[in-house]
Amino acid sequence: MPVDSGGHWACRLLHPRSVAIVGASARAGSLAAQALANLRDFGYGGRILPVNAKYGELDGLLCYPSLDAAPGPVDLALILVPAAAVPGAIDDCVRAGVGTAVVFSSGFGELGAEGLEVQRLMAEAARAGGVRLLGPNCQGLIYRPAGLVATFSEAAQAGLGDSSGIAYVGQSGAIGGSFLGLARERGIGLTAWASSGNQADLGVADLAAGFLEEDEIRVVAMYLEAIPPGAQWRQLTARARQLGKNLVVLRSGRSDAGRRAAASHTGAMIGPDTAFELVSAEHGVIGVTDVDQLLDTVVELAARKPVRGPGVTVVTSSGGAGGIAADWLDGAGLQTGELAAETRREIAKFIPAYGSTSNPVDVTAQLFAQDDDSVFHVCRTILDDPGTDVLMMIMTNVTGARAARVARQLVAAAESSPKPLGVAWLADGNQITEATKILREHHVPLHDSIGRKAHVWARLYRAHTARSPVRPAPLTGVVPGTGVLTEAAGAPLLDALGVPRPEGVLVTSAEEAAEAAARLGGRVVLKAQSPAITHKSEVGGVRVGVTDAASAYREMVDAVHAARPDAVLDGILVQRMVPPGIELLVGVEGAADGYPPVVTVGFGGVTAEVYQDVVTALAPLSSPDARELLTRLRGAPLLRGYRGRPGADVDAVAAAVSALSRYAAGLGDRLAELEINPLIAHPNGVSAADLVLRFTD
Amino acid sequence: MPVDSGGHWACRLLHPRSVAIVGASARAGSLAAQALANLRDFGYGGRILPVNAKYGELDGLLCYPSLDAAPGPVDLALILVPAAAVPGAIDDCVRAGVGTAVVFSSGFGELGAEGLEVQRLMAEAARAGGVRLLGPNCQGLIYRPAGLVATFSEAAQAGLGDSSGIAYVGQSGAIGGSFLGLARERGIGLTAWASSGNQADLGVADLAAGFLEEDEIRVVAMYLEAIPPGAQWRQLTARARQLGKNLVVLRSGRSDAGRRAAASHTGAMIGPDTAFELVSAEHGVIGVTDVDQLLDTVVELAARKPVRGPGVTVVTSSGGAGGIAADWLDGAGLQTGELAAETRREIAKFIPAYGSTSNPVDVTAQLFAQDDDSVFHVCRTILDDPGTDVLMMIMTNVTGARAARVARQLVAAAESSPKPLGVAWLADGNQITEATKILREHHVPLHDSIGRKAHVWARLYRAHTARSPVRPAPLTGVVPGTGVLTEAAGAPLLDALGVPRPEGVLVTSAEEAAEAAARLGGRVVLKAQSPAITHKSEVGGVRVGVTDAASAYREMVDAVHAARPDAVLDGILVQRMVPPGIELLVGVEGAADGYPPVVTVGFGGVTAEVYQDVVTALAPLSSPDARELLTRLRGAPLLRGYRGRPGADVDAVAAAVSALSRYAAGLGDRLAELEINPLIAHPNGVSAADLVLRFTD
Repeated sequence: MPVDSGGHWACRLLHPRSVAIVGASARAGSLAAQALANLRDFGYGGRILPVNAKYGELDGLLCYPSLDAAPGPVDLALILVPAAAVPGAIDDCVRAGVGTAVVFSSGFGELGAEGLEVQRLMAEAARAGGVRLLGPNCQGLIYRPAGLVATFSEAAQAGLGDSSGIAYVGQSGAIGGSFLGLARERGIGLTAWASSGNQADLGVADLAAGFLEEDEIRVVAMYLEAIPPGAQWRQLTARARQLGKNLVVLRSGRSDAGRRAAASHTGAMIGPDTAFELVSAEHGVIGVTDVDQLLDTVVELAARKPVRGPGVTVVTSSGGAGGIAADWLDGAGLQTGELAAETRREIAKFIPAYGSTSNPVDVTAQLFAQDDDSVFHVCRTILDDPGTDVLMMIMTNVTGARAARVARQLVAAAESSPKPLGVAWLADGNQITEATKILREHHVPLHDSIGRKAHVWARLYRAHTARSPVRPAPLTGVVPGTGVLTEAAGAPLLDALGVPRPEGVLVTSAEEAAEAAARLGGRVVLKAQSPAITHKSEVGGVRVGVTDAASAYREMVDAVHAARPDAVLDGILVQRMVPPGIELLVGVEGAADGYPPVVTVGFGGVTAEVYQDVVTALAPLSSPDARELLTRLRGAPLLRGYRGRPGADVDAVAAAVSALSRYAAGLGDRLAELEINPLIAHPNGVSAADLVLRFTD
Repeated sequence: MPVDSGGHWACRLLHPRSVAIVGASARAGSLAAQALANLRDFGYGGRILPVNAKYGELDGLLCYPSLDAAPGPVDLALILVPAAAVPGAIDDCVRAGVGTAVVFSSGFGELGAEGLEVQRLMAEAARAGGVRLLGPNCQGLIYRPAGLVATFSEAAQAGLGDSSGIAYVGQSGAIGGSFLGLARERGIGLTAWASSGNQADLGVADLAAGFLEEDEIRVVAMYLEAIPPGAQWRQLTARARQLGKNLVVLRSGRSDAGRRAAASHTGAMIGPDTAFELVSAEHGVIGVTDVDQLLDTVVELAARKPVRGPGVTVVTSSGGAGGIAADWLDGAGLQTGELAAETRREIAKFIPAYGSTSNPVDVTAQLFAQDDDSVFHVCRTILDDPGTDVLMMIMTNVTGARAARVARQLVAAAESSPKPLGVAWLADGNQITEATKILREHHVPLHDSIGRKAHVWARLYRAHTARSPVRPAPLTGVVPGTGVLTEAAGAPLLDALGVPRPEGVLVTSAEEAAEAAARLGGRVVLKAQSPAITHKSEVGGVRVGVTDAASAYREMVDAVHAARPDAVLDGILVQRMVPPGIELLVGVEGAADGYPPVVTVGFGGVTAEVYQDVVTALAPLSSPDARELLTRLRGAPLLRGYRGRPGADVDAVAAAVSALSRYAAGLGDRLAELEINPLIAHPNGVSAADLVLRFTD
């Protein structure tokens, strides 16, 4: 990316022509001294500008009394002064035209509300002055193409390893430091690394977006506590997909206990989970739930061999390991299919007769004892097998020089094919050091666990096959509303959307109730209509199979008034009874925080409250996609008509779901929630037997 | 265990006074030479007797031309001759009065049916002659209290490590060799190790039983492909519980694909899974599904600190790691509860103000930088906290000498308490070598993964709290049967067991049908009764709500004859209709292979076929335990009466389940299967609306 003086903020951050250290020091053991050493020791080619009124010179470098005394423009300023002095330092940055200020200092939002306010004002002042802010309470960043190690962390001092094209961004400096070292141990030198701390301005998603645009970066691994704003996340994930680059996300706070812990960490708020997960999945973002999974995934991605299909061929000399692998691959949704006859004939030339050419392939321990290239030929041939998408090599107790010979052959086979070859090696690590080194140097992914390998490939396969669906247009201009709409008030909406509903009349007297019932055919449903009452059945506000509508009206009005004297009744809805059918639930959570609305479909009524058989999707959703969504319900066979029971008009269900989703999408964040529960499905049609509709204004 | 001349087979195997090597050799690189070296190099104190007609002397030892030429009695013989010579060698063992013959040679059952037969005959000859057989195609055993390394595997040559009191037994030599090395790397020197190969005679369970009786063994880790015979497994698991020792089981073949792989490994057959799992769970056997989980569990058990409760307190300097841990502990069924106020006050003395004394406890990185014993005091205090059962220490990027200082304090804290303290250390292993060594030497379990630690403790907690229920007596002498019993024929059984059923009459003419219907109240159910027809509804053999019983009778007989001309009809059962209620399913799989019958209870009908909401238990089952079992159904709220729907008479359900379980237990393996589907439950009673009963003879 060309460096220019105005420059996108990421440009000036990642390719700074000069870096100032505000609060510079050479005092041994100080964070500032470590920061200075890091800048000097890793080949940074720009100007280093220590700033501290106490010194005229530091470690051979001219030291400036203030930021504006230093020659500008200063692209990057590392702020290492105590918290109380930071706002002043930020003002200095504004005056000096600094690009980004990285505030390492702690003592802000992570302490509580007061610190949060100071932090907020500081960030505002910076933004107003054209300065971006990283931190406070962060550990800075590393960007190797610029030789930039702008952190006080010692983690880099142990060496950075070979640059892998993989970037890491997270709020937590501790997790970040761990990840740097753990990745290096596995042969992955991170090319970029950033810790965003309290995220007063720049967040994890901002940094990820900056890294993503760099040619040297292919993968961005992220650790999130707070869900990023929807518009930003959608843009970032779509851009990664467009660039053919991978995002891998580790998120904490998924459980209530986890959320409490996250809130006390940096005061982060947890946002709408499901929409975030759906946007991520749609764009092929790989989601993980532990640091070691993040590591495993990054190791696999470093090999640059996408998992294009679910077929895994296992190669081993241990039938026991083969059996364990088959269990895990099956559980992970991958397939251990049979090799093509031609493949089996070919590998049989290299495998002793008492082995097996059937997947899992038993090459026998003999193959590893031979000093020839049989292992290479077997693996090469299997990688060419049409049904094989991934080769899983499981080694057991082969060690020392023998192990190294095998490793070299595995490398040769892996390098001869675009398909992934990975190794689970179950042996004392101290006995396979040379083999380990060979595999890591050539980016052949190595694990010590069969199950974890299976899961990594399953994740990569899911990400590879993720597709954004073709979405219909949102519906606009249809029946706006405010507050809560009752079922009666919402009826015109259902009509406008083409969602069938039972015929009904809103009445305000017992006489009207009787007339309406007579017209509707004798046996009717009565439902109390009040914006204040959403759980009608709990207050005697629903009666079915009513034959004496007038009496039922009076009883209902009395019951509701008694239970909810505060509620204003619009009237009683007298409705034709819907014949029994399959009770479904269709709900939509309105768009929030930039994320699209989320559609939930599934089995309604009592059974589904217990079994929670629902599926979700982002709105808007086409009818064909709604149809496909329904097939993912565990109870999907029930929709087709099961054991003599009538089925459901799936097309009608899908059309209703699609229309509601398009409506919700058109309302943007004006919709709070919408629910039809139940949508009663018959073999020839559906009927919305209730409606809850709530707007945000 | 005292050594005596007659001696239990395990005695002579584990404490042999003499070991013969049949097919001995000193040829460099040969398996026999390795076996000889292993016997000599690890302090075996008995007599080593090489047997090979080709040599007079081997490596300084007298070599005998045949087994009977060697001085007896020979307790253990290692057979290393080619497969063809093995049967003869076994005969020699019989003549020489050998205790156990360990056959390393391959070329038997693992090749197919022919080899299986040779193996079988060999084992029979051995048993008849009083010789136990280990193998063939096995890798032998190690028993360190006797200095016995009776294997050709090189795995021991890398050193055996400190003796841990942990034994490993498995069919697969490869998995076994891996496990030996992997455990040693983690600081666990296996005290005993055995590979049973083709299991022609001695199986994994036999060896485990032998090891369990040894004072030096506290834990037996097992790798199983075939499920052991029920009587043996029940005895072994109960004995382990009685001795206060742990069994840990890794099993493959859980999936179909896994089973295929296992079958091709050593020709093993897979037996009844559910009964095995229930017997195991009841006796606190720890089940795992991968080699790394087996290892993790053994590392934890080596610390000898049982998990007596679900309360985990997390201690860390990384809020991010704390959040991830809270997610995992929650998901694993453990609890991250709050510390007692007194505990918090005490640890606050050691933690900076900007940390947190709330679980997860944030001690801040400062604590690890200090050169004092704050870490020790914080951990010690937390271990004393009443609600804390386990302390999880999560370290991130603390390395080198600092890490070693922290490790020493963790060891001191761990040694001061009977509660488990475990460490997840997320850092480059090369940077924490000293800390790693310290923790491993003192058996403080160390992992590189938060999630895996959570799962290990969850497993240990479950095992610790496992209890065998008090079982009622089996019922005997009640209505024996043979073959298949129809519902009509089984009615007296239900009556004898006190299980309510709808009144009904078996009729053999349309007139009788009409009479019976009239007597039973007008609307009846008709069901075709034939031992040959188990799925009546598929052949028109069930009709409900019948008002014209005579016509329905004729139509049904015609329909059934047309669909199943082969089936002999006992008659048509005319039955009172049971009012609608909650449809449950109660089934029993009869005892098989020495395992008890398995009771399955859950929701019947269509919904449960789709959601499979069932729970299982071993028979016989008391009524209170049956009641408790029902609470574990996902749909349990439905039994209590949910949202205005009537509930179920849970006592009546439990009584029926208990009675049926006691009946099944009394039948032993004479019962194949029994099923009542549906058992219709009302608020005041139950009714068995169908019955399938099949005996094995």
